[in-house]
Amino acid sequence: MTAHALVIGGGIIGLSTCFEFQDAGFEVTLIDPDPISGATHHAGGMLAPTAEVQYQQQALVPLMKESAQLYPDLIRRVTQYTDLPTGYRTEGTLLIGADRADAQHLTELIDYIKAEELDIEALTTRQARQLEPALSPRITKAAAIDGDHQLDPRLFARALFDAVLARGAQHVRDTVTTVTTIAESATHQAVTLNSGAQFEVDSSDVIILAAGLGAAKITGWFEGEHPLQLRPVYGDVLRVRVPESLQPLTTRVIRGFVEDRPIYVIPRADGTVTIGATSREDQPHPRTSAIHDLLRDAIRVVPGLEETEFLEATCGARPGTPDDLPYLGQVRRSLIVSTGYFRHGILLAALGARTAVQLATGQQTSPAIAPCDPFRHATSTLNV
Amino acid sequence: MTAHALVIGGGIIGLSTCFEFQDAGFEVTLIDPDPISGATHHAGGMLAPTAEVQYQQQALVPLMKESAQLYPDLIRRVTQYTDLPTGYRTEGTLLIGADRADAQHLTELIDYIKAEELDIEALTTRQARQLEPALSPRITKAAAIDGDHQLDPRLFARALFDAVLARGAQHVRDTVTTVTTIAESATHQAVTLNSGAQFEVDSSDVIILAAGLGAAKITGWFEGEHPLQLRPVYGDVLRVRVPESLQPLTTRVIRGFVEDRPIYVIPRADGTVTIGATSREDQPHPRTSAIHDLLRDAIRVVPGLEETEFLEATCGARPGTPDDLPYLGQVRRSLIVSTGYFRHGILLAALGARTAVQLATGQQTSPAIAPCDPFRHATSTLNV
Repeated sequence: MTAHALVIGGGIIGLSTCFEFQDAGFEVTLIDPDPISGATHHAGGMLAPTAEVQYQQQALVPLMKESAQLYPDLIRRVTQYTDLPTGYRTEGTLLIGADRADAQHLTELIDYIKAEELDIEALTTRQARQLEPALSPRITKAAAIDGDHQLDPRLFARALFDAVLARGAQHVRDTVTTVTTIAESATHQAVTLNSGAQFEVDSSDVIILAAGLGAAKITGWFEGEHPLQLRPVYGDVLRVRVPESLQPLTTRVIRGFVEDRPIYVIPRADGTVTIGATSREDQPHPRTSAIHDLLRDAIRVVPGLEETEFLEATCGARPGTPDDLPYLGQVRRSLIVSTGYFRHGILLAALGARTAVQLATGQQTSPAIAPCDPFRHATSTLNV
Repeated sequence: MTAHALVIGGGIIGLSTCFEFQDAGFEVTLIDPDPISGATHHAGGMLAPTAEVQYQQQALVPLMKESAQLYPDLIRRVTQYTDLPTGYRTEGTLLIGADRADAQHLTELIDYIKAEELDIEALTTRQARQLEPALSPRITKAAAIDGDHQLDPRLFARALFDAVLARGAQHVRDTVTTVTTIAESATHQAVTLNSGAQFEVDSSDVIILAAGLGAAKITGWFEGEHPLQLRPVYGDVLRVRVPESLQPLTTRVIRGFVEDRPIYVIPRADGTVTIGATSREDQPHPRTSAIHDLLRDAIRVVPGLEETEFLEATCGARPGTPDDLPYLGQVRRSLIVSTGYFRHGILLAALGARTAVQLATGQQTSPAIAPCDPFRHATSTLNV
């Protein structure tokens, strides 16, 4: 009998997890009331293990490196099952600083990145503008990161969804409320939906909790306080369209700092540009001051953005954790947690999906996931 | 037999025209494929004959004054036929300048307005901030215009639409292509729709061409070049929502100049604020530089806008004419033109609607409409 994987959550994590379980020979059921509507819908999609390096987040670096290496093969395999575009682009990234303090910050960051043995090349601003003529002549510092790529999260998630359906996944449009063990049998679990419907899962099957922030509302599998300390971290994101006469405005991702505020400008294959991103924990909708900051900073870095059509301002809620590391691990034989990817959900999806399969099939996992134990912030215990 | 008014166009002009013809005892048919979707949907809604005074547009002043005086009674009558809100607010307007050059500009404008015998009161910035504490302390000049009021164009247009339907108007969801005379009878006209359907109109009836920019596409009633030289003038408009804890941010309309760029901040009764407006003739969609300018300038004048929720950026096309005056007049016995209201469509709707009825019923019209002859830019002649 074919083993069954029941994946809860249809964002980038859940969808890539579905795909990898199918590759491993599982039958897959995806449960999500509205796939690709959460953090994935608002994400930037940078596959940027180098530019994402941050002070005091050393544990993230090996996760990001490893997942970035898995991406080309994941995309190759996904596109065998769908004709939909992924927006995958490998032109690389330019890291820039806007004022003198930003230049100093960048100089230190470049050293730090090199110390992590990641590839980055300092450029003169003249060299940077030869690579990307749309860059402002007023930038103060630049570096090239050829290995930091990007994809369009909405497109890639749709492609994944299409691929997993094409391979026979069942999609249940509902929300999971509880995952419980069945009293008579410690090896059987029940997944209960909002509608009252139930899935029974035996010990040869596996449940993957990949519902992003929604995972915090799924109970029944632990005693006491919820072990997953997820909180929403909001990010405002803009989309604009470059007039045809100015396309392409840039081919590389432009990211960096303007008066210490992070900014990124991501050119998509369809002529749109995604501009982000703030990180704040106040209000769950686009904030006027944030939209203003993003526009001002993005225009300062790439002045030609002034000529674009303003398409939308949205705000996504990313599942943050106390230490900015995901919750990724097997909490019992047939229950795997894979959420809390915070700002790195797109990049880490490849590793998260592969790891879930390795955990379910008893294969060795990457040592990089050791700090990701889902119970590390828990005062609760597993409900067995 | 009851006379019939066939009103082409369901924006603020067409809808108020429907209403006034009903008041005059006409049966009304409104033809519009999608009412309240054009310039009205994107308008600010300021009923501001004083603040709208501009150099070298003297002919507009009496039109604006007269229409503003008609508004309270129009709103009173409309609300007898509908329970829908109009967003009509009479708290008045503060005119402000942001920098020293703006203060100088405002000082001259105040003198000019007084010379037009309109009411405006210069204030110290301290007085202005006592009236509206959310005003930036950095403003350089202020004046109060108690007689410049506002309504919410989307709400008022919906209320008008509801009222005219309640009074028995027929609504035909289609686009008019031609208005022609019927060969056998010079007094009969035919209005042909996109679907091919036709309305026949006899000499006791009247057709009112109130289709905004769409009027330029309606042919058949003239020989040669189209007499209406309408062009789209785009305006970017933002809407934000003030958090409940900060409501009301302001009660008056705040408008003025920031580094010579016009800005207005219109507080609505529902806690939203409309921010406008640019005036440009380039691209027919929200322009990123314009959104940026509006945000920066509005925040500079009312800093609390930073705390708001960003709702939308839209761009409306207003029907401009070569001299910024509307096309308002009777072009033959049963055909009245009422369009080209440019930036003043909301304010001038009351006068435009009343004038159309006066023209149709042989009453005297205001001398203010003398410069509004629909054929004044025409090289063509009427098709009789």
